[in-house]
Amino acid sequence: MADANKHVYHFGEKRTDGAATQEMRELLGGKGANLAEMCRIGLPVPPGFTITTAVCTYFVDHKGAYPNGVEEQVKESLDLMEQESGKTFGDPNNPMLVSVRSGARDSMPGMMDTILNLGLNDTTVEGLAKLTGNDRFAWDSYRRFFQMYGDVVLGVQPESEDDHEPFEVVLSGLKKEVGVTLDTDLTTANLKELVKRYKSLVKEKTGRDFPVDPMEQLWGAVAAVFGSWNNERAFIYRRKYNIPHSWGTAVNVQSMVFGNMGNDSGTGVAFTRDPASGEKVFYGEYLINAQGEDVVAGVRTPKPIAELEKDMPVAFKELMDVRETLEQRFRDMQDFEFTIERNKLYMLQTRNGKRTGLAAVRIAVELVEEGLLDWKQAVAKVPPDSLEHVLAPIFNFNALAQAETDKRLIAKGLPAGPGAATGKVVFNAARAEELSRKGERVLLVRIETSPEDLRGMLAADGILTARGGVSSHAALVARQMGKVCVCGCQELVIDYEKRTISVGDTVIKDGEYLSIEGTTGRVFAGQIETAPSEVIQVLVDKSLKAEDSAIYRQFATVMEWADKARTMNVRTNADQPDQVANAMAFGAEGIGLCRTEHMFFGGDRIVAVREMILADDLTGREKALEKLLPYQREDFTAIFETLNGLPATIRALDPPLHEFLPHQAHEIKEVADQLGISVEEIEEKVESLHEANPMLGHRGCRLGIAYPEVTAMQARAIFEAACDVAAKGIPVHPEIMIPLVGTRKELSLQKDIVDSTAKQVFAEKGRTVEYQVGTMIEIPRAALTADEIAEDAEFFSFGTNDLTQTTLGISRDDAGKFLTLYQELDIYGQDPFASIDQTGVGQLMEIGVTKGRTTRPDLKIGICGEHGGEPKSVEFCHRLGLNYVSCSPFRVPVARLAAAQAALKG
Amino acid sequence: MADANKHVYHFGEKRTDGAATQEMRELLGGKGANLAEMCRIGLPVPPGFTITTAVCTYFVDHKGAYPNGVEEQVKESLDLMEQESGKTFGDPNNPMLVSVRSGARDSMPGMMDTILNLGLNDTTVEGLAKLTGNDRFAWDSYRRFFQMYGDVVLGVQPESEDDHEPFEVVLSGLKKEVGVTLDTDLTTANLKELVKRYKSLVKEKTGRDFPVDPMEQLWGAVAAVFGSWNNERAFIYRRKYNIPHSWGTAVNVQSMVFGNMGNDSGTGVAFTRDPASGEKVFYGEYLINAQGEDVVAGVRTPKPIAELEKDMPVAFKELMDVRETLEQRFRDMQDFEFTIERNKLYMLQTRNGKRTGLAAVRIAVELVEEGLLDWKQAVAKVPPDSLEHVLAPIFNFNALAQAETDKRLIAKGLPAGPGAATGKVVFNAARAEELSRKGERVLLVRIETSPEDLRGMLAADGILTARGGVSSHAALVARQMGKVCVCGCQELVIDYEKRTISVGDTVIKDGEYLSIEGTTGRVFAGQIETAPSEVIQVLVDKSLKAEDSAIYRQFATVMEWADKARTMNVRTNADQPDQVANAMAFGAEGIGLCRTEHMFFGGDRIVAVREMILADDLTGREKALEKLLPYQREDFTAIFETLNGLPATIRALDPPLHEFLPHQAHEIKEVADQLGISVEEIEEKVESLHEANPMLGHRGCRLGIAYPEVTAMQARAIFEAACDVAAKGIPVHPEIMIPLVGTRKELSLQKDIVDSTAKQVFAEKGRTVEYQVGTMIEIPRAALTADEIAEDAEFFSFGTNDLTQTTLGISRDDAGKFLTLYQELDIYGQDPFASIDQTGVGQLMEIGVTKGRTTRPDLKIGICGEHGGEPKSVEFCHRLGLNYVSCSPFRVPVARLAAAQAALKG
Repeated sequence: MADANKHVYHFGEKRTDGAATQEMRELLGGKGANLAEMCRIGLPVPPGFTITTAVCTYFVDHKGAYPNGVEEQVKESLDLMEQESGKTFGDPNNPMLVSVRSGARDSMPGMMDTILNLGLNDTTVEGLAKLTGNDRFAWDSYRRFFQMYGDVVLGVQPESEDDHEPFEVVLSGLKKEVGVTLDTDLTTANLKELVKRYKSLVKEKTGRDFPVDPMEQLWGAVAAVFGSWNNERAFIYRRKYNIPHSWGTAVNVQSMVFGNMGNDSGTGVAFTRDPASGEKVFYGEYLINAQGEDVVAGVRTPKPIAELEKDMPVAFKELMDVRETLEQRFRDMQDFEFTIERNKLYMLQTRNGKRTGLAAVRIAVELVEEGLLDWKQAVAKVPPDSLEHVLAPIFNFNALAQAETDKRLIAKGLPAGPGAATGKVVFNAARAEELSRKGERVLLVRIETSPEDLRGMLAADGILTARGGVSSHAALVARQMGKVCVCGCQELVIDYEKRTISVGDTVIKDGEYLSIEGTTGRVFAGQIETAPSEVIQVLVDKSLKAEDSAIYRQFATVMEWADKARTMNVRTNADQPDQVANAMAFGAEGIGLCRTEHMFFGGDRIVAVREMILADDLTGREKALEKLLPYQREDFTAIFETLNGLPATIRALDPPLHEFLPHQAHEIKEVADQLGISVEEIEEKVESLHEANPMLGHRGCRLGIAYPEVTAMQARAIFEAACDVAAKGIPVHPEIMIPLVGTRKELSLQKDIVDSTAKQVFAEKGRTVEYQVGTMIEIPRAALTADEIAEDAEFFSFGTNDLTQTTLGISRDDAGKFLTLYQELDIYGQDPFASIDQTGVGQLMEIGVTKGRTTRPDLKIGICGEHGGEPKSVEFCHRLGLNYVSCSPFRVPVARLAAAQAALKG
Repeated sequence: MADANKHVYHFGEKRTDGAATQEMRELLGGKGANLAEMCRIGLPVPPGFTITTAVCTYFVDHKGAYPNGVEEQVKESLDLMEQESGKTFGDPNNPMLVSVRSGARDSMPGMMDTILNLGLNDTTVEGLAKLTGNDRFAWDSYRRFFQMYGDVVLGVQPESEDDHEPFEVVLSGLKKEVGVTLDTDLTTANLKELVKRYKSLVKEKTGRDFPVDPMEQLWGAVAAVFGSWNNERAFIYRRKYNIPHSWGTAVNVQSMVFGNMGNDSGTGVAFTRDPASGEKVFYGEYLINAQGEDVVAGVRTPKPIAELEKDMPVAFKELMDVRETLEQRFRDMQDFEFTIERNKLYMLQTRNGKRTGLAAVRIAVELVEEGLLDWKQAVAKVPPDSLEHVLAPIFNFNALAQAETDKRLIAKGLPAGPGAATGKVVFNAARAEELSRKGERVLLVRIETSPEDLRGMLAADGILTARGGVSSHAALVARQMGKVCVCGCQELVIDYEKRTISVGDTVIKDGEYLSIEGTTGRVFAGQIETAPSEVIQVLVDKSLKAEDSAIYRQFATVMEWADKARTMNVRTNADQPDQVANAMAFGAEGIGLCRTEHMFFGGDRIVAVREMILADDLTGREKALEKLLPYQREDFTAIFETLNGLPATIRALDPPLHEFLPHQAHEIKEVADQLGISVEEIEEKVESLHEANPMLGHRGCRLGIAYPEVTAMQARAIFEAACDVAAKGIPVHPEIMIPLVGTRKELSLQKDIVDSTAKQVFAEKGRTVEYQVGTMIEIPRAALTADEIAEDAEFFSFGTNDLTQTTLGISRDDAGKFLTLYQELDIYGQDPFASIDQTGVGQLMEIGVTKGRTTRPDLKIGICGEHGGEPKSVEFCHRLGLNYVSCSPFRVPVARLAAAQAALKG
C-alpha cells in the first residue's frame, strides 16, 4: 500500500517515487505512472512530479482544501526539479518553466488538459528570450500562456453563448489595427502590446491583476485541474462510461524543454510499430526547431521519422534504443512524444498505441513470438471486434482517399455489416438477381427489407436501407450472410416507383454506381475499388493457401489461443448448408439458430407455403404441407450432413403468416394465377392476417398451437432427415426449439406434437436418433416463469432481440425514429439492440438462468439473439454461466475471442 | 381435529356425526356436511352416511384399496339406517333402497353424480312394487337403475365416439318392436322384457352377471365415485380452477324416499328468498306424485310453491318452518330439495342459493337488518361484479324472452361494457352524431375503434366491434363512458363502403335496428326494449330520489360498509368533467388517470394538434401549441373545479402522433384545405409516421423527449389552471404522470421540464400549488429498475394494460386471433387483459413495488390499467400493498367492494 501521507510523487534522474504498477496507475493516473516508469528504466525525462488522485478526491470533498503536507511536498519536489534542470522557478535570468497537465487513469474529455510555459511573467519572459535567443518566441509563448491561463484558470470566458472569446476579441482588434490577418504576422512589439491589453482585460473581467508569482500561478493551475474533475462534461462522460466519480484525476507538473532552440532541436511523435499494419517498423514523424503543438497544428509538414537519422544521427540512435526499451518494459506497442533540446532527447509521454484490427492481431502474435508476452496476455490484448476488420473486404486505400477528395460522400447511416462494397443501385430482389446473373456487382437499396428480399440480398454485394437499426432485418441477415450493409440511412429519400435515391440535390438512378462502407456507415456516390480479406480467401474462397498468408496465420494463432482459454461454446445462426460450412470454417461448434422459415422462400417452396396459408381447412393445409415436407427434409438432410455430428438447434416456424403472402397488386395477381384462385381471395386473406402490432401478434408457437399440423410437418422433416443421415453413419443431434413461449403449457403442447412425431418416424424408419426439445426465452414472462418452463424444456436459448423489444417496449423496426436521440441524450449508454442492456434485459436473463436451473440443474442455456456476437454481451453471457453463444457466421471468431477474454478475466 | 380412524359419518334422527363446520366441510364435502347439519337442527332428513374425502385420497393413492375399518363402519351405519327407516337393505318384502352421490367441497363437473334406487334386484323390485302399489314405477326404476349402474359403474359404454349408448340401442330396439315412440308408453311387461335384455347386454359386454347383491352394488358405486375423482374432465376442471388434487370427494349414501307414492306424495325445489330480486318471499316449485327427476325433466309443468298450501297444508306449514330454520342456521339464502312421502316431509339437500347481482345486494342488506349477519360478513358475501348488474341498464325481461323465442340472436362477441342497448346501426362517428341529434338511439358498429371514433361513441347508446378484446380501445372507452359494448364479434363481416353487417345470410343495413347485451356479449336483430337502473337514476340522472328507491338504498348501504372495511383508495380513469362528476357520485376519491390526449379531439383542438404535428420546425410547433394551450387550460380548470380538492393524476401525451392525423383520402383532403397545405404534405407525414409496431414505437415519454415543447405546454396548462382554481379557494392536487418510462433518465428529463415550467408559472401567477411528478410502470424494464426510477418518481402507477402486452408479448389489438383458442386450451386460465396475470405480470409488479419502496419507503403506488376495476386484480393489488386502484367510473363501486373484501380477508 502507498503511504497515505505521501501526496506528491517526484520523477527525475535523481529520484523517482512512482512506477507503472496497477496501484500506482490508480494513484498517479496513466500519464504520471508512465512518466515515473520511464525515469525508472533510465529514459531521459524532464524532471517533475505528480500530485495524486487521492488529493483530488480530498480537494473535491473539502471544497478546494488540500490535505496537510501537500504544499511542503510540492516545494520539495520543485527544489529537486531545479537541481536537475539547473534552472530556477521564477529566476529572471534562467527561469524554469513548467507544464501542468491533468492525468486521470485514462484520458477523459471535458477535463482541463494542459497549460504550458507556466512560470512566465514580465521578467522571466526576458530570461526565456535570452535562453532561446528568440524574442518573438518568448513573447508569443507568454501571450499564449496568458490566454490559456486567463481562460481556464481565471475564468475569463464569454458571458453568453453568442459572445466571442474575450482574448480572441482583443487579438482580432489588434490584428485589425496593425493590418495583419495571420497570428504569425504579429511582430514582437505587437505581442508585447497584446500582453499589455490582456492584462487590462483580466483586470477588468476579474477585478484582479494576472498573477505574476510563479508559485501562485502553479497553485491556481493545480486547483483548476482538480476543479475540472467535477465540471459537467467530465461528469457526463464518467456517467456514460461508468467511471466512478471517486476515482479523481492526478496533476502532472513537469519542467519544460524546448524543441525550438534551433536546428539542433526538434520534437515528434512516434509508434514503436506501424499502428496500421502492425509491422515491426519504427513509425512516426518530427519537426526540426519546433514545439509539440506545431506537429499537431499542421502549419509545417512533419518529416517521416526515418529521416531523423540523417538530421540528428545521435538523437535518432538514442530514440531507437528508447523504442526497444519501451517495448521491453511495457510489453506492447507504444505511442510516445519526444522533444530534442539542443541535441538532447527528452521523453514527454508514452502510452499503449491505438491500432487497426489487422495491427492488433499481428502485434499480439509477434509479441508472443518475441517472448514479450505469453499467449494468455496476448489473447487479452486483441479487441474482439478487430477480427471483423481482418475478415472484411475493404476499399482500396488510394481509391477511398480519392473519393474523399472528390467529395463523393453523400450520406451516413448505421454501420450494420462490416466491410466495403461498390455496385450498381437496384431497388428490388428481381433486378438484383437479374444484374447479378449478368456478372454485375449490385447494391440492393430498400426503404427497409423483409424476408421477400432475401434472394435479392443474396445476389447483392451490399445492402443499403433508409430505415431500421443495426439489428433490423436487413442488418441481421446481412451479417449472417457476411454482406456489407449500411442501414437506417435516414437522409436518403427512396422512390420505388421512379427508382431513384435523392439526398438533397443529388439523385441516383437505378443502375448507377454507389459505394458503401459498412464499417463506418458511409455512403459514396460512384465506384470505389475494393479488396477481399486474405482470411476469407483462405478459409472460404480457398483461393489462397494458409502458408501464403501471414495475416491468416496470425489470425489462426489468435483463434487457437482463444479456443484454449474459453469455456463457452460458440455456435452460429445459419440456415443454408453453405452458410453452415462457412461458419464451421470460422470455428462454429454447431448451429444455435436455424430459422426454418428462411428455407420457405427458395424455389417452389413459397408456392406450397402460400397454398397452405390460403387453404380453407385442415385438409387443404395438410395437402400443401405434404408438398412442403420433401423440401424441408432435403434442407435438413444437407444441413445435418454438413454439420457432421455437430448439434443443430432448429426453430419451428416463427414469423407471422402474412410475411409469406404477396402485398403488391401485381404480385398478388401473379400468385392468384399460380394457385388458380381469385385475387379477391388473396386480398381477403392478406386483410384478415393484417395486425396492428405483428411483433406481438399471431406468430411463434402461437402458430404451431393454432396449426399443430405445421409443427408436425416440420418435426417430421427433421426426424426423417436425421434418420436418413444417421443411416449413412453420420451422427446427428437435432435440438428442436419452440419460439415465443410465455407459459409452460405452450411448450408442452408443442413438445407433445414433436415427441409423437418422433415416435412415428422412428417406427417407420426402424431407427432412433437422440434429440432434445427446448424453447426460446424471448418474452419477459418466459424468463419470469423459467422454473415452470424448465419442467418441459431440455434447453433454453435467449432470444435477446425480442426480449429486448419487449422488456424495453421498443420495436426495433421503429426505434430509428428516436433511438439516435436517445443515445445522444445518454438515455441508453449504447444501442440496446447491439449490446445487451444488462441492467434491464440482463436482470431478466439472470432470473431465467437461476429459475431454469433451480428446476433442472444441468439445463443447457445459450443465446441466439444478435447480441451473441457482441463482445460485451458475450462476456455478460459468460458471467451468467451460459453454455454457449450463437451468432452470425462472420461473428463466430469475434465471439470465440470474446468468450476467451471473459474466461481469462474470471 | 377429526378422529383419523373415523371414515364414515352417520346422519339421521338417532345419531349425527358430522356438522357444517369448515373442518367437516373439508372431510364430508358440502352436501354431506349440510345433510348432517340439517339433522342436527332437527330437520327431517332420510338417514344415511358420508364416507370421507380422506378415504377418497387413500383410495386414489392405494390403487382402489380402503383404509381399515371402512367396511365395518359402513355396515354399522347401514344398520342404523335400517332401524330408522324401518326397512331392510335387500329385504324382498320391505327393501331399503339408497341413493349414492358424490360430494366434493363444491360441486364439480366431470365427477360421477348420482345413482338412485340402489339395492334393487329381481326380488326387491317386487317389494318396491308392493310398497308403492305401482308395478310399473317399480320396474321403470329398476331398468333406470340398471342402465345408470351399467353405464357408470360397470362401464358398459359405446366402444367408439360414433357408436350409440348400448342401453339406448336395446331400449330403441324394443320400442320399435312393440311399436311405441315414448318411454312412458312402455308397459310393465315391456319393462320386464327390457330388464331381461339389459342383463344379457351386461353379461355380453362385461363377461359377468349384473350384481344382484345390494352390498356388492353399493361398494361398486362407492368405488366408481372415488374413481371418478381422477377422470380426465374432473382433472382438467381442477387444474383450471386451482383445486388441489389432494382434496378428494366424499360419497353420500342415503335411504331413498319416494314422492310418487300417490297424491299424498310429491317433490320440489325451493329458495328461501327470490333469487332474482332478493325479496324475502318463499320461491320454488313442486310436483304432486312425482320424483325429483320429473321436476327437472320438464315433462310435467311444476306448480308454484305457494299452491302447496292448498294441496298439502301440513307439509306446507312444515316447509315454511324449514325455510326459517335453514336461514337461521346457514345465515344465507338457501336453495333446497325436498320430497314428501305419504304426507311426510323429507329434506334431501340444501346449499347457498345462486342469485342475481340485484338479489345479492338486497339479501346481504336484509340479512344484516334481520340480525342474521354483521356488516363485515354481509360485505364479504356480495360478489363485487354484482354491482355492475345493479348499475347496468337492462333489457326488459319479456321483450328479451320474446327475442329469444323469435330466434333473433344472430351472433356472440365478448362482453365488454355491461348493460343492454338497442338502436339503429351506424358505421361512423358523424352519422352517429347526426342520428343522435335527431333523438334516435344508435349503435355504433366498427371493425375496431380508434380515438377518432370518440365523438361517435359518446353519441351512441352502444358500441359493437368485430375486432379487439375486452381491453381493446372500444371496450376501454365504453366502460369509462359507461356505454354498453360488445366487442371482438368475429362472426360479423362489416363493410364500411356498403354500410352493411353480414352474419351468414343475415344482412343488416345502416339505419336498421340491432340490440346488444354487454353483460353476455349477445347480439340480436331488431329492437328490444330496455330499462335504466334505479341507482343510475338516483346518482347520475337525479331523476329519482334516494328515498324512492329501495335498490339504491341497499346499494348505498353495501358501499358504506365497503368503505368502512377497505384500506386502499379508489380513483377513476376519467378525462371529462362530467365523467369525473359521475365517478365521484360513484365514490371515486380522485382521478388515477386523466388521458390528456382524449381532450385533443374536442372541437377546434384537433386542428391545432394537426397543425403541430405537420409543422416543419420548433417555431411552427410552438405556434400550434400556443393555440392548444388555452383549450387544455380550460379542460384542466373544469376538472380541478369538479374534483374540489381531490387529487388528479394527469398523464402527459401518450399515443403515437399518427393517431391524430386523418388516414382516409377525403379526410386528408378536408384537413389539407383546413390547414392550407397540400394533400401530399399530409400524406408524406402520415407515411413518415407509419410504424411497424406502433405499440412499441414513438409514443409515451419518447414524444415528450423528442418534442419537449409539448410537455412544457401541457405542464403550463396544468399549472395555470391549478393556480387559477386555487385562487378561487378551491384546493388542487395535480400529479403529473410521465408515460412509458423505461429508464430513470427519461423521467428525469421530463421532470426537469415540468419543474421548470411550474417555477415559471408560479412566478407569473404569484402563487404556488403543491404537485407531484411520477411515472407509469408499464414496461418490464421500468419494474426491473424501479429502484433507480424511484429516485426521481414521487409516485408510481402500474399501467397494467401495456405491462401485460409487453410482459406476455401479446398485442391486445391482435390477441383476438388466438386468445380464444388459448383460453380453450387452458394456456391462460383467464383473459390476462381482463384479470392480472399474477404469475407473470404480477411478479414484475411485486419487483416494482419492492424496489420502488427500497429507494422511497413512502412511495405512493397505484394502478390505472383496466385491471384496476376487476375484483381478483384489486385483491392482488391490496396484497401487494398498493395505495389505490383506479378504474373507469362505472367500475368504481365494484373496486370499492373488492378492496373491502380484500382487506377483510387479510
